[in-house]
Amino acid sequence: MFKLYYAPGTCALASHIALEEAGAAYATERLDFKANQQNSPEYLAINPKGRVPSLVTDRGILTETPAMLAFIAQSFPQAKLAPLEDAFAFAQAQVFNSYLCSTVHVAHAHKLRGARWATEESSFVDMRGNVPQTVGACFALIERGMLKGPWVMGEQYSICDPYLFTIAGWLEGDGVDLATLPQVADHRKRMAERPAVRKVLAEEQG
Amino acid sequence: MFKLYYAPGTCALASHIALEEAGAAYATERLDFKANQQNSPEYLAINPKGRVPSLVTDRGILTETPAMLAFIAQSFPQAKLAPLEDAFAFAQAQVFNSYLCSTVHVAHAHKLRGARWATEESSFVDMRGNVPQTVGACFALIERGMLKGPWVMGEQYSICDPYLFTIAGWLEGDGVDLATLPQVADHRKRMAERPAVRKVLAEEQG
Repeated sequence: MFKLYYAPGTCALASHIALEEAGAAYATERLDFKANQQNSPEYLAINPKGRVPSLVTDRGILTETPAMLAFIAQSFPQAKLAPLEDAFAFAQAQVFNSYLCSTVHVAHAHKLRGARWATEESSFVDMRGNVPQTVGACFALIERGMLKGPWVMGEQYSICDPYLFTIAGWLEGDGVDLATLPQVADHRKRMAERPAVRKVLAEEQG
Repeated sequence: MFKLYYAPGTCALASHIALEEAGAAYATERLDFKANQQNSPEYLAINPKGRVPSLVTDRGILTETPAMLAFIAQSFPQAKLAPLEDAFAFAQAQVFNSYLCSTVHVAHAHKLRGARWATEESSFVDMRGNVPQTVGACFALIERGMLKGPWVMGEQYSICDPYLFTIAGWLEGDGVDLATLPQVADHRKRMAERPAVRKVLAEEQG
């Protein structure tokens, strides 16, 4: 039995969907970011980084979305959420997820989390102003060559799909015109129709 | 036969060391960042992101350090560079590498790569000024609980070690006092003594 710590509107959605798609037995615990619960002593004991997601397992606690997604895929091989028998294909899935984590999510974070890297209000304004362009450039790369279709890796749905869906859900807020990204928009629609995604969104938004 | 594209002083060092430790058959190609070779049409055809490392394989091209490190470990199981038979332990290694990639490297990048996220010179100055503190906070977490010792994952050397060694090599330049990080400093020394590391550094610095 796993326990997932999440907050609505965060990248924890990706792991939440993956757990549901995997048919995992799991409970969830919602953190209230407005009350800064992610930095409470109780939560910092679980994840000293003060971030979500965290996944509590019998063996210990995991963090970091790409690592958690690979772990979920490996723990539930029958769900076929990653090409586990093919190191190169598995690496391709990991390349995609690592790019989302270290480049796309980071570009997005400069909208509201500038205080992670700067101090001056003028810097925050500057960073926010660049987000439509920087996030847009990332998604242009995804649209042009990284999203094979119908799913990220091609015919087979994988751990890349809930992660792309999660970050693509931020595009309007980031000031990126979805009309320039027809494949990404199409992927988002296709994801939103999946029963697992509907169920998870109903819980997170409820 | 693999081909690794790298530039000296970059995170590509981690994959370079891992290839050497794995006993892989590989060639290298050095890019000249001062000549902006990473953004040449020839290189952008290999990696449209214009970054290093890139690993050319018979099956296609891989990028993103955490994905490449896991791929190297899985491709050369006899080198025992990751706990491949234990999904949870493998995830722990990936958690560590994902943190280096998406948080620690990103904090460091605000010293010289502020133009990725901002436009104004005042913002770059602000970002640079925060690097000692932000990188220092990341390494304080690593020192306190993430580096088990003697290697990152404990007794067994893994793909986490060359990656930590690579990013810890930037600490002085980032204005972080290594004296506050005795375990990290000790790890760096132990790494520098490994034949594979000596060989790779001699090539990259030659």
